[in-house]
Amino acid sequence: MKKALLFIAHGSRREASNEEVREIARQVSVNVSDDYDYVEAAFLELAQPSIPYALAAAVDEGCEQLFIFPYFLAAGKHVVTDVPELVESFCQQNPHVEVSWLDYLGKQPELVGLLSRAVTKTP
Amino acid sequence: MKKALLFIAHGSRREASNEEVREIARQVSVNVSDDYDYVEAAFLELAQPSIPYALAAAVDEGCEQLFIFPYFLAAGKHVVTDVPELVESFCQQNPHVEVSWLDYLGKQPELVGLLSRAVTKTP
Repeated sequence: MKKALLFIAHGSRREASNEEVREIARQVSVNVSDDYDYVEAAFLELAQPSIPYALAAAVDEGCEQLFIFPYFLAAGKHVVTDVPELVESFCQQNPHVEVSWLDYLGKQPELVGLLSRAVTKTP
Repeated sequence: MKKALLFIAHGSRREASNEEVREIARQVSVNVSDDYDYVEAAFLELAQPSIPYALAAAVDEGCEQLFIFPYFLAAGKHVVTDVPELVESFCQQNPHVEVSWLDYLGKQPELVGLLSRAVTKTP
């Protein structure tokens, strides 16, 4: 069964910022190619592709299993309400597609170590 | 010279989300206590302390060297314009304080590895 990974980010009016997110997703996709057949970034607002569009595109690519990764640092309204509502609406319209949630970035146990090294490294 | 590290985050209407950011800053502060005398989270909007308040509080604590760490995933308007404007205004009013910028989270080279492991780990 083909598996898709969707990087869900907020989106910015500054297109260079959205491109940064897409580039991170591209770099991750290289590393995880054994686990996912399809990796794409999607945006809650202000940038394309939208979440509904990206989910539908993954299905059009033949993916039957979608993994949602909220690329957010804390469980604010976007993580708790806005993104789930859009995904839930997609699920209702596509009951044959299996959708799973991964823990959002801020919840990853490795994050504190990365941050600690980042703020103490010598430039 | 006493050094402060300021974790600058966006802020959320959902207080639990802001508390998550403060907790991450607290955990990092334990790891970096050899490098920083003072570590605090501050928020661009919707949460306290504000950036101007947090910068002033660090100075009140005797810190003469402040390190700004934008806790953001991409260089959107907040990272490029909003946060720098507030910090610049503080600098003009406090010329005796040395202020340095650290690369924002999204720019950290370790991030892609962390993300790759996060999306492939077995639950």
